[in-house]
Amino acid sequence: MQVSIDLGLTYSIGPSRTVLLAIEAARCGGQSVLHDNIAIEEAVVHRIEGESGLGTRIWARLAIDELRLRYRAEVDVTRPAPHLERHAAAPLPELPAEAFGYLRPSRFCQSDQFGSFANKRFGGLSGGAKVAAIRDWVATEIAYVPASSDAGTTALDTFARREGVCRDFAHMVCALARAAGIPARYASAYAPGVEPPDFHAVAEVWLDDGWHLVDPTGMSTEADAVLIGVGRDACDAPFMETVDDAQPIAQSVTVRYSG
Amino acid sequence: MQVSIDLGLTYSIGPSRTVLLAIEAARCGGQSVLHDNIAIEEAVVHRIEGESGLGTRIWARLAIDELRLRYRAEVDVTRPAPHLERHAAAPLPELPAEAFGYLRPSRFCQSDQFGSFANKRFGGLSGGAKVAAIRDWVATEIAYVPASSDAGTTALDTFARREGVCRDFAHMVCALARAAGIPARYASAYAPGVEPPDFHAVAEVWLDDGWHLVDPTGMSTEADAVLIGVGRDACDAPFMETVDDAQPIAQSVTVRYSG
Amino acid sequence: MQVSIDLGLTYSIGPSRTVLLAIEAARCGGQSVLHDNIAIEEAVVHRIEGESGLGTRIWARLAIDELRLRYRAEVDVTRPAPHLERHAAAPLPELPAEAFGYLRPSRFCQSDQFGSFANKRFGGLSGGAKVAAIRDWVATEIAYVPASSDAGTTALDTFARREGVCRDFAHMVCALARAAGIPARYASAYAPGVEPPDFHAVAEVWLDDGWHLVDPTGMSTEADAVLIGVGRDACDAPFMETVDDAQPIAQSVTVRYSG
Amino acid sequence: MQVSIDLGLTYSIGPSRTVLLAIEAARCGGQSVLHDNIAIEEAVVHRIEGESGLGTRIWARLAIDELRLRYRAEVDVTRPAPHLERHAAAPLPELPAEAFGYLRPSRFCQSDQFGSFANKRFGGLSGGAKVAAIRDWVATEIAYVPASSDAGTTALDTFARREGVCRDFAHMVCALARAAGIPARYASAYAPGVEPPDFHAVAEVWLDDGWHLVDPTGMSTEADAVLIGVGRDACDAPFMETVDDAQPIAQSVTVRYSG
Repeated sequence: MQVSIDLGLTYSIGPSRTVLLAIEAARCGGQSVLHDNIAIEEAVVHRIEGESGLGTRIWARLAIDELRLRYRAEVDVTRPAPHLERHAAAPLPELPAEAFGYLRPSRFCQSDQFGSFANKRFGGLSGGAKVAAIRDWVATEIAYVPASSDAGTTALDTFARREGVCRDFAHMVCALARAAGIPARYASAYAPGVEPPDFHAVAEVWLDDGWHLVDPTGMSTEADAVLIGVGRDACDAPFMETVDDAQPIAQSVTVRYSG
Repeated sequence: MQVSIDLGLTYSIGPSRTVLLAIEAARCGGQSVLHDNIAIEEAVVHRIEGESGLGTRIWARLAIDELRLRYRAEVDVTRPAPHLERHAAAPLPELPAEAFGYLRPSRFCQSDQFGSFANKRFGGLSGGAKVAAIRDWVATEIAYVPASSDAGTTALDTFARREGVCRDFAHMVCALARAAGIPARYASAYAPGVEPPDFHAVAEVWLDDGWHLVDPTGMSTEADAVLIGVGRDACDAPFMETVDDAQPIAQSVTVRYSG
Repeated sequence: MQVSIDLGLTYSIGPSRTVLLAIEAARCGGQSVLHDNIAIEEAVVHRIEGESGLGTRIWARLAIDELRLRYRAEVDVTRPAPHLERHAAAPLPELPAEAFGYLRPSRFCQSDQFGSFANKRFGGLSGGAKVAAIRDWVATEIAYVPASSDAGTTALDTFARREGVCRDFAHMVCALARAAGIPARYASAYAPGVEPPDFHAVAEVWLDDGWHLVDPTGMSTEADAVLIGVGRDACDAPFMETVDDAQPIAQSVTVRYSG
Repeated sequence: MQVSIDLGLTYSIGPSRTVLLAIEAARCGGQSVLHDNIAIEEAVVHRIEGESGLGTRIWARLAIDELRLRYRAEVDVTRPAPHLERHAAAPLPELPAEAFGYLRPSRFCQSDQFGSFANKRFGGLSGGAKVAAIRDWVATEIAYVPASSDAGTTALDTFARREGVCRDFAHMVCALARAAGIPARYASAYAPGVEPPDFHAVAEVWLDDGWHLVDPTGMSTEADAVLIGVGRDACDAPFMETVDDAQPIAQSVTVRYSG
């Protein structure tokens, strides 16, 4: 599926005039960036690798007090259809180092608290079937309610409150999958179906010998989600960071099918 | 049902030589203390009222570094059978002040976090039927696992971990009932069926015009639970408190049917 | 000090058309309501007692989908000047039942977590001098930052974040005072010095044989704070509650010296 | 400094008969393993890399229900003396990817909560001087109290409770350093001065262009701490893990100066 991205950001930035951005479509398996272009007014930039070596982050030093950015990209998403159920879990002792750390609890995904629940609810399943059951449980039990959570909301909170946004849905999948012994990571993304249009967040789980995308919100699929970066949870993958306060002036995210 | 209680406590107590005890069967509706006797070696004692005016607490000033206590009681439990389903919820505006505070979240029962879950799971029910559904949910979903929790465990923890002891079961009922708009309080108790023998904890909910006992562990019933004291949660109803550390030397709780 | 209060509230209210209000100046020691008047359009009201028997709450059943309320009052605040240092702590075994429950941890004041800190920082002091040191510590260490907290923020959060609003300052005093063995409660209030004008929150501590007001924000004093209601923390003393969502349309709180 | 390690572990292991161990002294900068030997009875083992590529972990599949392990090593610690104050902070935009992730909050180190405190207390300092001030603050304000914390204790808890063990001291340094903009990671270690003898935990901070060891407990120094593995916090660096329960039968950790 070919996807077109058009992002505009205008933020007032504090005296450091320095921001770290994670907004470019990653060059990684499952998606091919046909072309993209980023323009940041009055900025000197350099790139560093994203978490786990996936994607890039941009340090921008601004000559002015505003970040004025436009990013456009055409991405061909070639990720094969999910068929989660066809994939087996990798036996723990055979997990590569790349996947191992994603078994751990993290700031917003306290998987250490969900072992008993995961065992009770999903213990009879394994591998992709277990992941599918976790995804379906999250989709059924958590209500998608815009603005129902904030930057401090954790999977433990969401589990009790039963509502959240895409960030919380992804955290919930990560927490439950890890508690069930399956490596899971958080991914920031673009996707055409997000309503209202915004950045998106999904999860990836390690089955057989690779990462498989899971979107419990149903807003995107393997065939149309464009990954930006990954990490243990949302704390690893903010689209913008600065040591100062950044105040939004304008933001638009347009993602649609093209090609 | 007539119940016989025999409690022995020996604790080493720090330099304050002062403890506050909540161990006597309450003189309250639903149970009649036929006779009881407390003996504390080398102590000067005085009583204060329990929380919400139910039961008593004993301040004991000791002449020695140990608390050596024996308490025996015969109690006739006259509480009518539950039939929760026959009782309606009291409309909120008609709740007496006595019940109103028990709608609030508390240290260990964060009912403010469970509104959405309670509404989704139990929203189609009301009154006693709703309480019965909450009790059954807790009984089914939470596993009774001795020593699986500690003095800091909250209902939010238990909800995720899906295991606990009587204290946690009672907290879970209180948190969910309050979230569902039904006043609920924590009660410390004696009961014959507790295994291993120990102090017990149950919940009480306000329906129609009174408190009704709910024991989601199934260890006790309205007909054999002997209440000691009540409160918002376990923080209100410890059986012993002291400003020093108290180290257990011996403790035995024997509760059996008699009469 | 004579204080004049003029409150206007307009809120859209959900289908229950029922709200519980805690906005009237309490008839209680330390303040004398010279006259007051509440007008709620198209409502049938009845009053219930406030928490701990202090102040009143109003149940209002509305005939329309909006709460349109105006409350005006003249209150003579006669509370004696603080002189916290002159007051001794009441020995725990002599605390009246009225004060005892306010030693307990609560939803937003996890005093059970602060015992070691309170002992280390304030352990050399006692009674009113200890309370004054706690008040001064909070005033010095916590920054007053409008909108820096929300309805879920606890004393444990505030202790780490070192910023908050009046609610958080009062929680912090309650948590530390209780941890230090001094009963402390949360009070909602009106006060002339609050900027921007809004409802206010303070703490009260039990010393000698009564409650003493403590405002670590410095915005009010014993001489000009008008109490509305009290409780274990903010969860006991909201100015308005409803089972539906209530959306603010207009709100103005004017409190000034008069007489 | 030459350090001799002798570790004995005997644990009963559940039906999986599989454990993951992180107990070998790492081959890494600052320490040279002169010789070491591990013997695990009736086990088939293979190694995987430790977190961040530092140290190794051993998967052991046992033919019996017990883990019976002995590990002995001689390590020459060549890490230069600290002189934290001589090191400057690396400017954020120049941080290598290796260090960048260690700026993030983690399960047990909620650095996102401590920004205001870190700024207020340590904001006037920078680089190594700031780290030294954080180390000294932790050493002064947190009391080392054996058994005062458990596997679920977080830096937020420790910050309030003001007591903990080496794990909590290291978490506290990580949380505050990250909040202050300095990458910090948790390291499991052996050290001669640990009393009672046990595994140890320290922190490492990124200054100039490398990791520098910080032990706020004062039990070890750069010159005698032998690192095993590192990670975001204790969840990344347990000495033993298994999907079953593991029950200790015997454990001895002997670490002394040698050579």
